[in-house]
Amino acid sequence: MIKTLRWGIIGLGWFGEIHAETLSAMPGIELAALCTRTPRRLGELADRFGVGKRFTDYRQMLADPEIDLVSIVTHVDDHRDIAIDALRSGKHVLLEKPMAPTAADCDQILAAAATSRGFFMVGHVCRFDPRVVLAKQAIDEGRIGRIISMHARRNLSKTIGRMVLDNISALMGDGIHDGDLMLWFSGAKPLSIYAQEVHPGNNKYADGGWALARLEGGAVAVIESIWHLPESTRFQIDARIEVIGTEGALYINCGEAGLEIQDGTGNHMPDTVYWPKLFAQRMGALRAEFRYFADCISAGRRPDRVTPQESRDAVALLAAAQESSRTGQVVAF
Amino acid sequence: MIKTLRWGIIGLGWFGEIHAETLSAMPGIELAALCTRTPRRLGELADRFGVGKRFTDYRQMLADPEIDLVSIVTHVDDHRDIAIDALRSGKHVLLEKPMAPTAADCDQILAAAATSRGFFMVGHVCRFDPRVVLAKQAIDEGRIGRIISMHARRNLSKTIGRMVLDNISALMGDGIHDGDLMLWFSGAKPLSIYAQEVHPGNNKYADGGWALARLEGGAVAVIESIWHLPESTRFQIDARIEVIGTEGALYINCGEAGLEIQDGTGNHMPDTVYWPKLFAQRMGALRAEFRYFADCISAGRRPDRVTPQESRDAVALLAAAQESSRTGQVVAF
Amino acid sequence: MIKTLRWGIIGLGWFGEIHAETLSAMPGIELAALCTRTPRRLGELADRFGVGKRFTDYRQMLADPEIDLVSIVTHVDDHRDIAIDALRSGKHVLLEKPMAPTAADCDQILAAAATSRGFFMVGHVCRFDPRVVLAKQAIDEGRIGRIISMHARRNLSKTIGRMVLDNISALMGDGIHDGDLMLWFSGAKPLSIYAQEVHPGNNKYADGGWALARLEGGAVAVIESIWHLPESTRFQIDARIEVIGTEGALYINCGEAGLEIQDGTGNHMPDTVYWPKLFAQRMGALRAEFRYFADCISAGRRPDRVTPQESRDAVALLAAAQESSRTGQVVAF
Amino acid sequence: MIKTLRWGIIGLGWFGEIHAETLSAMPGIELAALCTRTPRRLGELADRFGVGKRFTDYRQMLADPEIDLVSIVTHVDDHRDIAIDALRSGKHVLLEKPMAPTAADCDQILAAAATSRGFFMVGHVCRFDPRVVLAKQAIDEGRIGRIISMHARRNLSKTIGRMVLDNISALMGDGIHDGDLMLWFSGAKPLSIYAQEVHPGNNKYADGGWALARLEGGAVAVIESIWHLPESTRFQIDARIEVIGTEGALYINCGEAGLEIQDGTGNHMPDTVYWPKLFAQRMGALRAEFRYFADCISAGRRPDRVTPQESRDAVALLAAAQESSRTGQVVAF
Repeated sequence: MIKTLRWGIIGLGWFGEIHAETLSAMPGIELAALCTRTPRRLGELADRFGVGKRFTDYRQMLADPEIDLVSIVTHVDDHRDIAIDALRSGKHVLLEKPMAPTAADCDQILAAAATSRGFFMVGHVCRFDPRVVLAKQAIDEGRIGRIISMHARRNLSKTIGRMVLDNISALMGDGIHDGDLMLWFSGAKPLSIYAQEVHPGNNKYADGGWALARLEGGAVAVIESIWHLPESTRFQIDARIEVIGTEGALYINCGEAGLEIQDGTGNHMPDTVYWPKLFAQRMGALRAEFRYFADCISAGRRPDRVTPQESRDAVALLAAAQESSRTGQVVAF
Repeated sequence: MIKTLRWGIIGLGWFGEIHAETLSAMPGIELAALCTRTPRRLGELADRFGVGKRFTDYRQMLADPEIDLVSIVTHVDDHRDIAIDALRSGKHVLLEKPMAPTAADCDQILAAAATSRGFFMVGHVCRFDPRVVLAKQAIDEGRIGRIISMHARRNLSKTIGRMVLDNISALMGDGIHDGDLMLWFSGAKPLSIYAQEVHPGNNKYADGGWALARLEGGAVAVIESIWHLPESTRFQIDARIEVIGTEGALYINCGEAGLEIQDGTGNHMPDTVYWPKLFAQRMGALRAEFRYFADCISAGRRPDRVTPQESRDAVALLAAAQESSRTGQVVAF
Repeated sequence: MIKTLRWGIIGLGWFGEIHAETLSAMPGIELAALCTRTPRRLGELADRFGVGKRFTDYRQMLADPEIDLVSIVTHVDDHRDIAIDALRSGKHVLLEKPMAPTAADCDQILAAAATSRGFFMVGHVCRFDPRVVLAKQAIDEGRIGRIISMHARRNLSKTIGRMVLDNISALMGDGIHDGDLMLWFSGAKPLSIYAQEVHPGNNKYADGGWALARLEGGAVAVIESIWHLPESTRFQIDARIEVIGTEGALYINCGEAGLEIQDGTGNHMPDTVYWPKLFAQRMGALRAEFRYFADCISAGRRPDRVTPQESRDAVALLAAAQESSRTGQVVAF
Repeated sequence: MIKTLRWGIIGLGWFGEIHAETLSAMPGIELAALCTRTPRRLGELADRFGVGKRFTDYRQMLADPEIDLVSIVTHVDDHRDIAIDALRSGKHVLLEKPMAPTAADCDQILAAAATSRGFFMVGHVCRFDPRVVLAKQAIDEGRIGRIISMHARRNLSKTIGRMVLDNISALMGDGIHDGDLMLWFSGAKPLSIYAQEVHPGNNKYADGGWALARLEGGAVAVIESIWHLPESTRFQIDARIEVIGTEGALYINCGEAGLEIQDGTGNHMPDTVYWPKLFAQRMGALRAEFRYFADCISAGRRPDRVTPQESRDAVALLAAAQESSRTGQVVAF
């Protein structure tokens, strides 16, 4: 007999909605509460998913004893305060990435997590991508030797860019995935980073950026995030990672994920791995991530597939990249 | 509170072992019993997975009231008798594909399933492949119009071929997947089929074959199954399906599944979708298929994602292809 | 010192124009004469390329002693008579593929060629595609052993189909390329062929077809030609050939030819190999074919990279495929 | 009537041999002279190609009035002196890339070229790659708008790396191609560059490097050259260029060039574009480059598809990258 987990979501933007769609169909999980400051949006989604508990103030949700855990899917600028409050309330917390805008913010969350009775994990969904996990396993088995060079790209259509670039830059928003993966793959700490960004659009943050890091042990790690592909692009996301080692190389391609549809509206390669909707249910890596976190809670076992420290280190890497972009200088760690 | 399902496996070849690996890590499922005629193999796997109930006669497993459902993973020639016995015993039955060697065999199983209180499903794992499901949904949404041409390839290394070709031909063994998918995609019945096989190897069955079917509604459906790629091939499986309609086209690529590893032993593209081993657990489409069948049982809801009739129709199609290959003539339905 | 060759073109449809564009920029060649029955088209192209000799009757062109060779780019139904007249006139003749609609027509041309003092070659441009030539060389070096299975696809947008399908079917129009290549690769004669066509469009000939041939030596050869891809397709041509042998396999991909452009009008993969326009000149395999034929003439060496007999055999294969499609029966050779 | 050009080659390493193989089969060109300091190698190649004039001192070749032009295929460290001597001798000069190790060296060659009656071109073979030319044309037509980001990769097996890395670093040796192409595509001057190299091997120069440049107009240009892929890699060269503009994007893939062979020795993707050997002749972009230079000479028209200034600017870019790699600092222009 497994107890049903009562899950609340704080933040109902497009990705909070994906959380809700995913959670609402998972056995052993009850999507129990929703929270956003916009009453209309709140009612709309709560009605759609049949959720009784509705909040416009997240503190009220945290005070509700009938909620076991929350996922925080707000703007990154709000992550620190909400996460700390949630951890202090004793709830289990799944926080969307990036953990927070700065390493200092992350350190405050880490401190709160250390003393909370709730579990804490940052939702690095790529860690639950089978292609990525198999790559990590191959690296750990020594199949490619010592890593000498890595490149990761995560490029998106400007259509998507325009929706997100007032909240976060492309380099931080998607580079956080690849920064995390590169540190995980290599097990190395960064020594220095240098970055350049481009800002052709009219949103607050830069549409694209490149960062070139040097890691302990000698590897070079290069991150590319450009949210300015043409509207017509067949890529849902042009995402790939190449890792070259002293004895081998491996190539991850997340953009060409096994399905291309050419129809009256153009050429399309839909997501088949992260959160594809199959027979009206969201499946894929995001659901696997939720499953993992839920199973940890059910089993009373602290989640360790992504540690808070790792999530913090990825923020530190990308924050340094943004500092480099601002100053034009190489940033040392 | 969800009752744990007690699952037995009949047949412990390489794929029975995959069943065991997958089931042994699934929450809500107890891998409760194993059955094979080879005592040594039985002991080995039962020890490894800590399974108490061990049988060399499947009838004894079927007689055990503490087993809720069985998966049958034997040679296809044994499918009919074991499936009928299992259905008569009242257990829920997950039968591996192909359902049986002939349509007449399938009809006998269908009759047994119709009067059994157990649920019955054939394990068409491709129906649980996200790429395939998204393709089916796109077709049903009308995005490519009416289907006019389909091609499916499922080619394997001769290393794998040699292990399997004494049990089944390539055309039946892998064509059964694609025959099923093409009938499912198109919703059409076959009108005729013509096939040619090649037999360069020394095993009992032909190493490869092509079949060309005409469907009601006018579509042409072509199946390619060659289990004779070189040992060096980077393809774990070279599997792809292309569907051309009056208004669009779609391309499924199951062979290049997002990861390529080049190491000291050559170039490799491991499976990332069907049953990849991630952190020591078998994940992917096979697990999703098991989950689906288990959830149907728990909910008392008859499984309908793959119906017994559909599984039978796929056998009828491929059996006709083999008849055509034997006779050199076009076979009409 | 090399004598300039004076080249005439008979037939000025879209591909006759490509001939003219290519020839007009080739050193050692003078585009000396043009012929079409449509005076307006004739004047337009002759003016554009600065061609003095202009004919609406090809017989007059053949009678002109100041023309050394002609290429025939008319409807395939006119190939036989014009080719025979041209050969009888003593000119060197480059005839576009397919050689003629039937093997009997081809035999008449062969007879005329045998007694002509002019050289004769059918323009199988794929024989001059470097990818194809390297594949042939690898086969001849024994790298893939004895061929057991071949598949070739040559699919086009319905936009192109509509322009051509009143002249020729897809199966004959593009299958002629692949039929020729498969016979060339394998060095085998066909034993039987079976075909099915689809005809969703409103043009005279079928938009698509599949043919499955059995060759001496045991190989299966499968040809796919569907001229009904959606208007949006990124494929200029979706052309690929896979050859599986007893010891290896090879994969030719002519559709993804190294350049993809995503712009305001969609996703496009332009031809980079057959007749790309580079700095206002047509380059590529077609130019190489013309160069080869011209060099043969200059050197007085009979062209043998594609023999008339091979061109005839490819027609015989595809004509049998069309007969099979008409009758629904397997056609034996 | 076209005069035959008498061509000499200075430097007979592996690429000098490719020059010889290519030139020996080109109409209108006579491979008239060979020069290397190693008598045995000289005799071997001169015998093989039937070349009468044989030199171990390049100055003697330059003094021979019966040679019209020379290609210089020596170590890059010798380029400056030989090129200047050749230009002063009045011969036409085709110099392999990179032009010279430093911008200062290049400036001396430029000065010699400016006063020579011979034509001068650096052999940037990628400028003659149809995929690259079509990309440049699409950019110039405005199809992708203003360039904002470029990435180019040119990675090779360590087997090749070991043969070359005592002469030149990967970053200079292959980055010179991409630096040239990026400046050509964008028409922009560099503002700054930053680079990191890796040196896992035992040769004199670094096995790999990354450079990140900022260009006037705002684009970021990133160059990757790693000559340390595993021996098993199916890539003859993993070469690709992606260009993202404000209105579109384009993707050049030179590594997957339309042919993959899987045989008893592994998986291979042979070169089909640069200098493939077809029916015993070297064809492709290198031959097109030679043809272009020869045609310029025959026509008395100064070659302008690659100007000496452009070749010099590419050297300046990569030399700055190497300086950055040495110092760890960003280098401004």
